[in-house]
Amino acid sequence: MAPGEAPEVLDPPSRRTRIRAILDGGKAQAGRRVVVGGWVRAGREQGHGAPDPFAFLDVNDGSCQGNLQLFVKGEVVGYPLARLTATGTSVFVEGVVRRDERAKHGVELAVTRVLEVGEVDAAAYPLPKTKTGHSLDPAYIRDFVHLRARTYLISAVFRIRSELSFATEKYFRDEGFLHVHTPILTTSDCEGAGEMFQVTTLFSQAQKLEAELKENPAPTQADIDAAKIVAKEKGDTVAQLKSAQATKQEISTTVSDLKKAKQDVLAMEERSKLKPGIPRREDGSVAFEKDFFKCPAYLTVSGQLHLETLACALGDVYTFGPTFRAEHSHTSRHLAEFWMVEAEFAFANLQDDMNYAESYVQYLCKWLLDHCQEEIEFMVKSHDKDAMERLKLVSSTPFERISYTKAVEILKDADRKFDNKVEWGIDLASEHERYLTEVVFKKPVIVFNYPKGIKAFYMRLNDDEKRVAAMDVLVPKVGELIGGSQREERLDVLEQRILDAGLPLERYDKYMDLRRYGSVRHSGFGMGLERMILFATGLDNIKDVIAFPRYPGRADL
Amino acid sequence: MAPGEAPEVLDPPSRRTRIRAILDGGKAQAGRRVVVGGWVRAGREQGHGAPDPFAFLDVNDGSCQGNLQLFVKGEVVGYPLARLTATGTSVFVEGVVRRDERAKHGVELAVTRVLEVGEVDAAAYPLPKTKTGHSLDPAYIRDFVHLRARTYLISAVFRIRSELSFATEKYFRDEGFLHVHTPILTTSDCEGAGEMFQVTTLFSQAQKLEAELKENPAPTQADIDAAKIVAKEKGDTVAQLKSAQATKQEISTTVSDLKKAKQDVLAMEERSKLKPGIPRREDGSVAFEKDFFKCPAYLTVSGQLHLETLACALGDVYTFGPTFRAEHSHTSRHLAEFWMVEAEFAFANLQDDMNYAESYVQYLCKWLLDHCQEEIEFMVKSHDKDAMERLKLVSSTPFERISYTKAVEILKDADRKFDNKVEWGIDLASEHERYLTEVVFKKPVIVFNYPKGIKAFYMRLNDDEKRVAAMDVLVPKVGELIGGSQREERLDVLEQRILDAGLPLERYDKYMDLRRYGSVRHSGFGMGLERMILFATGLDNIKDVIAFPRYPGRADL
Repeated sequence: MAPGEAPEVLDPPSRRTRIRAILDGGKAQAGRRVVVGGWVRAGREQGHGAPDPFAFLDVNDGSCQGNLQLFVKGEVVGYPLARLTATGTSVFVEGVVRRDERAKHGVELAVTRVLEVGEVDAAAYPLPKTKTGHSLDPAYIRDFVHLRARTYLISAVFRIRSELSFATEKYFRDEGFLHVHTPILTTSDCEGAGEMFQVTTLFSQAQKLEAELKENPAPTQADIDAAKIVAKEKGDTVAQLKSAQATKQEISTTVSDLKKAKQDVLAMEERSKLKPGIPRREDGSVAFEKDFFKCPAYLTVSGQLHLETLACALGDVYTFGPTFRAEHSHTSRHLAEFWMVEAEFAFANLQDDMNYAESYVQYLCKWLLDHCQEEIEFMVKSHDKDAMERLKLVSSTPFERISYTKAVEILKDADRKFDNKVEWGIDLASEHERYLTEVVFKKPVIVFNYPKGIKAFYMRLNDDEKRVAAMDVLVPKVGELIGGSQREERLDVLEQRILDAGLPLERYDKYMDLRRYGSVRHSGFGMGLERMILFATGLDNIKDVIAFPRYPGRADL
Repeated sequence: MAPGEAPEVLDPPSRRTRIRAILDGGKAQAGRRVVVGGWVRAGREQGHGAPDPFAFLDVNDGSCQGNLQLFVKGEVVGYPLARLTATGTSVFVEGVVRRDERAKHGVELAVTRVLEVGEVDAAAYPLPKTKTGHSLDPAYIRDFVHLRARTYLISAVFRIRSELSFATEKYFRDEGFLHVHTPILTTSDCEGAGEMFQVTTLFSQAQKLEAELKENPAPTQADIDAAKIVAKEKGDTVAQLKSAQATKQEISTTVSDLKKAKQDVLAMEERSKLKPGIPRREDGSVAFEKDFFKCPAYLTVSGQLHLETLACALGDVYTFGPTFRAEHSHTSRHLAEFWMVEAEFAFANLQDDMNYAESYVQYLCKWLLDHCQEEIEFMVKSHDKDAMERLKLVSSTPFERISYTKAVEILKDADRKFDNKVEWGIDLASEHERYLTEVVFKKPVIVFNYPKGIKAFYMRLNDDEKRVAAMDVLVPKVGELIGGSQREERLDVLEQRILDAGLPLERYDKYMDLRRYGSVRHSGFGMGLERMILFATGLDNIKDVIAFPRYPGRADL
């Protein structure tokens, strides 16, 4: 039965023009009739109370940094213009583009019809102009993750983020790489990358079981004993019938009764074992074999091992996805969830690795200069005067390449005191990295051939057996931007390195298969997207460059 | 001290040419000297034992469906050619391209130097030619997720997947959308989308605590009592010194001793409360306030609610990322982890939604026809003779659009018996969807205006209050490919719908903020990438179109 027999007609489509298209078109757009929608960033009414009041609304729709100025006459709306002017109000209007020399982009929109308005109670709105203008405090708006993308700052950051994401896809595709997806859920772990989150359904299983047992309690021993008596009686009946030479039919009916009674006993015994709570083994440890994957599963800390399996089949691959660290770090540099670009290439050594890393970073910088001019200019004005120069420098200057040993020598000879002691064998601290790139070389630096003791087991051991073919790309402002290495492709060396690291060989059996069957030299690197955005924008807090930051105690929405 | 003072010189880069470039270039490549690397798919030695043996190797490097034929003379290698011919062997060689009319692409490579070989023990290699040729069983190779990308089938699937990923980025960017990243970890839940995985550090915290307590047991009551006595003694000493009018210095030293003793007691009391195991509240329930995020956190089942917050600031956005379902489904259509494309657009209604969905799907189909000809041809030959025709049909035919009510009428009138009963109000089953698109219309169908009872609370209620502005895109072979809707933008209606769904209003407070502050009409849709690949390839099992399939009991690597 169809309710209501009126034909179901759809509203016509919206045919909205993005503000970017109008502003980019500039004066050539004059005379064009368009429908636009957006949110008021600033509005002012003029001639209030006069017979012909009007309002100017600076409206942004997220498509670009600039606002389109809307000119709205009171007679067009038919209600008080004050309902349009509060920051945050949404407007969906039709109008005609016209030249206006005073407007920033040389044009404004003369509104001829207001299609829809979404009002704002200015007193309640948490992001009024006063809090999001030039005095904006990123920490304040962090509490409003669901609204902050309407601010100049965060919308600029998200456009930069979007362009970096696309540039990444474009770069690797143009270079002939395949985009693959490494898993988020994993039962192996990429040694040393960090603390892992565990993924489980045991809590919800326990909850369901508890509810179920409340509804329908487990049988007691008395219940089971009673069921056993029933079964025994059925058994006796069968025996009696048989000895009385009853008909086949009579016997078979009773046998089937007996079977059922026995099954009931078994089912009750099984059910009586059900215990509320997390399932445990006899020794009291958690029975992860009862979990969804029948073993403990974790969120990935790096897709590298998986990526290697694909590179050793498809040649050149990259993945771009979320990565997780369960570290209790309360710093401006750490997130529990962040996005990583990881690339892996077969038949490639450490120098290939460095070449790809350098050309990728330069590509990203050039891309931003070509596609995010206004956003970077905004960052220069509001947060970091060096942002533009830094992009230009990195996009156009060949990276310095020095060995770790050389880097340590330079740091030892430095005329500055570091908080962290410098000697061969240490992991370089951020202060060291920034000193090298910002003070010594004043450009990006690739440090290579690190001591094996501070790097992961899978990095290829050099002939000196003291160093590994690892490399880090250091850039001004953030220090390490990219980390990579040539991977150990020799089965015997890899085995020894796993054992030396105190790791169980069997966990890496499939990883070693890559070295057993058609092993090839291969290399790769990883870059945290958020770190690249910090580099590009000059922002200091990583929580401001991701839409929904996750860190200890906070996972809003 | 730098170990080894020899200068650290890097090996020269590899300068490999991809096989795709050679095969695409065809005969024009003849005479070119190149370095190539790849894995032998088939090899055969000729003239074994003769003075001048040679071998043909069909080598693939993952860059394309085709193989490059290598011609290797025994004298070039200097060891038995048999070491090169086993399927799976890796070879990294230099050679000269030359015409060969018998070779599939008109060229072969005459090898002049073998740079590296990664041998294979043919007896041990799990993917020899016999198991991966035309008789390939996808289920068999599923146990070798780390090697199966070397097969014709899976490498074709992954190139198709890569192209679909890039086409997605290109489509939305060309349409003016911003690429945003919705979170994977979430504390809200997208109602009804499915069972969720919980993310926790409680197990590892418990494990650490247990280890720590074993190392350093919690103080007993006797320990605490003893510490209290010490504190009391210190207190007495202070009192004595004070009454004896001791020097300020003497008193202050003892007071500070007393303070420390008191702190020790407090610390011991605190520590004595430590209990091994998962932290519990007094009522025995799990104390999730002790978990990493101070509350239960889950893996996302849909980024939609987050995406809406961004669309209501940035206008048009999309996200492309992993999504999770903790359902114990053992079917060929379900995965615990899969990739979803979700798009959301402001100032857009249901018809805009349908227009975007149709144009996106057509774009993907055209893209594959333009970029994966060889892969689709392979699928036609090996798995699904209709794969190419289906892509052509969908890429070029306008989609039929019918209301749900109309769809139900058609199904009721159908001259076929369905397993699932048809009546107004049911959720369409896969058999219904496929009947509509494959049998009735023989092209993609968009069904819109579904009964509100079978759809989520956030879908916009139609004026009849019986239906919601939802739409599903159905395509041949897979049925539902895309699901979308116009969202409820009216605060009062949304509130009522949340209450009607039996959900707590407070959980959706921020979501409702979008309707409080500058609310706008908006719409969106989601598409599972794997389903699109099933559609494109004609494969039947979703486990074969993702690199590392996760399902109940399995999360290999």
